[in-house]
Amino acid sequence: MAKTRKPPRPRAETPKGFRDYFGTEVTERAEMLRVIAGVYHRYGFDALESSAVETVEALGKFLPDVDRPNEGVFAWQEDDAGGGDWLALRYDLTAPLARVYAQHRNDLPTPYRRYAMGPVWRNEKPGPGRFRQFYQCDADTVGAASMAADAEICAMLADTLEAVGIARGDYLIRINNRKVLNGVMEAAGILDPADPARFEAERGIVLRAIDKLDRLGPDGVRALLGEGRRDDSGDFTKGAGLAGEQADIVLGFVSARRDSGTATLARLRELVGASATGGEGVEELAGIESLLTAAGYGPDRIVIDPAVVRGLGYYTGPVYEAELTFEIFDEKGRKRQFGSVAGGGRYDDLVKRFTGQNVPATGISIGVDRLLAALREKGRIGARETGPVVVTVMDRDRMADYQAMVAELRSAGIRAEVYLGNPKNFGNQLKYADRRASPAAVIEGADEKARGVVQIKDLVLGARIAESATLEEWKERPSQIEVPRGELVAALRDMLAGQGGAAT
Amino acid sequence: MAKTRKPPRPRAETPKGFRDYFGTEVTERAEMLRVIAGVYHRYGFDALESSAVETVEALGKFLPDVDRPNEGVFAWQEDDAGGGDWLALRYDLTAPLARVYAQHRNDLPTPYRRYAMGPVWRNEKPGPGRFRQFYQCDADTVGAASMAADAEICAMLADTLEAVGIARGDYLIRINNRKVLNGVMEAAGILDPADPARFEAERGIVLRAIDKLDRLGPDGVRALLGEGRRDDSGDFTKGAGLAGEQADIVLGFVSARRDSGTATLARLRELVGASATGGEGVEELAGIESLLTAAGYGPDRIVIDPAVVRGLGYYTGPVYEAELTFEIFDEKGRKRQFGSVAGGGRYDDLVKRFTGQNVPATGISIGVDRLLAALREKGRIGARETGPVVVTVMDRDRMADYQAMVAELRSAGIRAEVYLGNPKNFGNQLKYADRRASPAAVIEGADEKARGVVQIKDLVLGARIAESATLEEWKERPSQIEVPRGELVAALRDMLAGQGGAAT
Repeated sequence: MAKTRKPPRPRAETPKGFRDYFGTEVTERAEMLRVIAGVYHRYGFDALESSAVETVEALGKFLPDVDRPNEGVFAWQEDDAGGGDWLALRYDLTAPLARVYAQHRNDLPTPYRRYAMGPVWRNEKPGPGRFRQFYQCDADTVGAASMAADAEICAMLADTLEAVGIARGDYLIRINNRKVLNGVMEAAGILDPADPARFEAERGIVLRAIDKLDRLGPDGVRALLGEGRRDDSGDFTKGAGLAGEQADIVLGFVSARRDSGTATLARLRELVGASATGGEGVEELAGIESLLTAAGYGPDRIVIDPAVVRGLGYYTGPVYEAELTFEIFDEKGRKRQFGSVAGGGRYDDLVKRFTGQNVPATGISIGVDRLLAALREKGRIGARETGPVVVTVMDRDRMADYQAMVAELRSAGIRAEVYLGNPKNFGNQLKYADRRASPAAVIEGADEKARGVVQIKDLVLGARIAESATLEEWKERPSQIEVPRGELVAALRDMLAGQGGAAT
Repeated sequence: MAKTRKPPRPRAETPKGFRDYFGTEVTERAEMLRVIAGVYHRYGFDALESSAVETVEALGKFLPDVDRPNEGVFAWQEDDAGGGDWLALRYDLTAPLARVYAQHRNDLPTPYRRYAMGPVWRNEKPGPGRFRQFYQCDADTVGAASMAADAEICAMLADTLEAVGIARGDYLIRINNRKVLNGVMEAAGILDPADPARFEAERGIVLRAIDKLDRLGPDGVRALLGEGRRDDSGDFTKGAGLAGEQADIVLGFVSARRDSGTATLARLRELVGASATGGEGVEELAGIESLLTAAGYGPDRIVIDPAVVRGLGYYTGPVYEAELTFEIFDEKGRKRQFGSVAGGGRYDDLVKRFTGQNVPATGISIGVDRLLAALREKGRIGARETGPVVVTVMDRDRMADYQAMVAELRSAGIRAEVYLGNPKNFGNQLKYADRRASPAAVIEGADEKARGVVQIKDLVLGARIAESATLEEWKERPSQIEVPRGELVAALRDMLAGQGGAAT
């Protein structure tokens, strides 16, 4: 008989650059987002969840990955019934906000304070440790031109970092202004206010070069401002082609931070010289600085630092970045600062793309996964979660009894489950309990049933004894106790309390 | 001067079939999911979040929408650097679980109880009220062949519905078994155990026909079992081509529910006759029934009902469906039952696709948006949320003072914000507060400042007075009070408490 050939088995793999999150990776993130949402809500921000899918035209092209397919987004075309539109997964939460505000502006309050949290997707080249789906958590104010909106965002960011467990002193929010940078570029001769399109490519290179200051240092940035830079692997990146003194002006700007905000502002005023745009930028920074100082957010938390520029194309005024200042060891064992966990700024033209009308807007985006990694680094989260109490199955015909037992435990607030695998091999049941990090196993065989008792195995103590305990400890506190069936809940509660954790 | 033509403005629209969620729509869903996760966790289930993007081959083709592009999923091809794979957005949370378990099975406990919640996407033809992105919330047990796993899932579903606010009596979980259906089809001559591929198309039509019983009634189903059915619009759907007595056997199965589980089981035993598969299915149902009865989940909550079959192609044994039994008015003003909010079943072959080894699995999926709609219908959620207290801006140079004021309110646990729009027109500020559903507005002009007082406007009372109040009420309780600046927090607390709500 001719047999049809079976199709090959599918590979059980996430697509390249994607990953799965298990257990506490999921619940710790959910809990952190809940705390952040609480702070945002307290500040008067309302929740928004836009769809993950947008039209490509609505998203616009603002990612720096200009050499990737679809300029860095995952995109596909609708069939004719869907109108043939090109759709894409959102690459951030800001571009969708601009679309949402433009679409619903008649029903939304102005100013509109909103927060949003969820995954975003970037079609980056897959590489080790780089993920193409990650979480962002944003707060933005649309429709407020006042620098008070920017100051509020920065203060709220500081409050948020402290609320999730980053201590004061372990973070610093740095503020700059694209207008000041534009003023400096005017002074350096690579921004002509009469023809803003001239030198656009050069200015883009300057922006990306400054953004790499942390990584490349001043010499690397200077090379990128000039002819270009060859990295350790031999790859050459074309520079902005600035002459030596032009590069000096830009580098002078980048290193303009002084000991106090007032001194930094004074230095910036010198650097922007007669540029109207630059002067406006400096005054905006002065306005934010004075509001934050009045509110008690001093330079231990928020400073003006011209070295911050942010990579995205849509910022038009103030830009912010929150970095964690404590040190960690990188993959090569070298100490380095933890670095950026949040960034944002003012993007006054993003809604205008849709409506033609000026709608000022400003906001912040927290890199959720980076911030979680920081909390793990600080030991704030990441302890191994205690699993459920496991009720073992000694007699498969008495499953109903065991299910009644777990139901009783759950009603008492104890996380519990019955073993659902093949119960034949009791050793497998205890191995299962171990893999689940169970604090205790309950045993009720025919003998126990006849005598009206249950055995409770203390798996935490058992593991400790197996590891290192002396005979004395064993004597003092047995790792398995027998109690009357009616005292199961009370005895388990005692045991869990004694372990210092709880399966509740 | 030649001007470059500007590109046309993008449309500010969600793609067809997608929508945005605002404010309480987002927070009420998050809260409901938090409650559900709590129940699942208590039952010993662990969180899992798989990536939204999967390879098309890993997802498989199990959706009933066979006539849609890519068989109902949103898909696109990777570029060469990504390996050229076809990727797609997940259409449910079950197919990804099978992939996750196959990929990580050496690191996961067996049985593996996991829950997952998040959006899924279906490339359905856009139509009114039909969304192509929606939330699911699943719990599954992988690696447990025992019917105790199915019983546990059903009991947990009942507990979950009650935990989110569906009262006992307002829901019913109905259980059936695909094996029983297969036994019946064997008896009807459209399933040949020696050649299961024969009549596959006919059996698919039978399945989908039964699944439409609620909507079409017995006559409509009978038409689909026979030659086919012409609907009100004149469209013809081809039937399974069964002869009259064959259709009778199938319809006899669908209406086999009796007054008690025992009676239903006895009737099913008659119907499956000598079919081994059918007999196995009946005994599985009997096993679930007896475990649930022992655990106290009686027919007021969970019943055996052969009319339930579920549409998805991957079920192999027990199937479940939770429906809400209270009545609502449909869009045409007719009373009807609210209907299904959750469904699931056993899918023993889904992991085998990847590994070639038998891995039994069973689970449930809650339609989050439908369940939220039900809670709204029942008045459990959906009350208009109270907005933040709005501190108005009487003097734009004193923004720092107003920000200090909101900071003080927030520290006291009162949700508050300063007005960030153009403060020139005070009427606009009050309109804004109204649109925000603010409970109160705070006013501190030059005069108040000089006298060390603030004005607090009770906007809830103000709205009530404006609507309907008599002069007496107005006298008794003024809608605006003046208090010393130092008593602002205390006075606001009193006012909010008096309103019976809180901006906290």
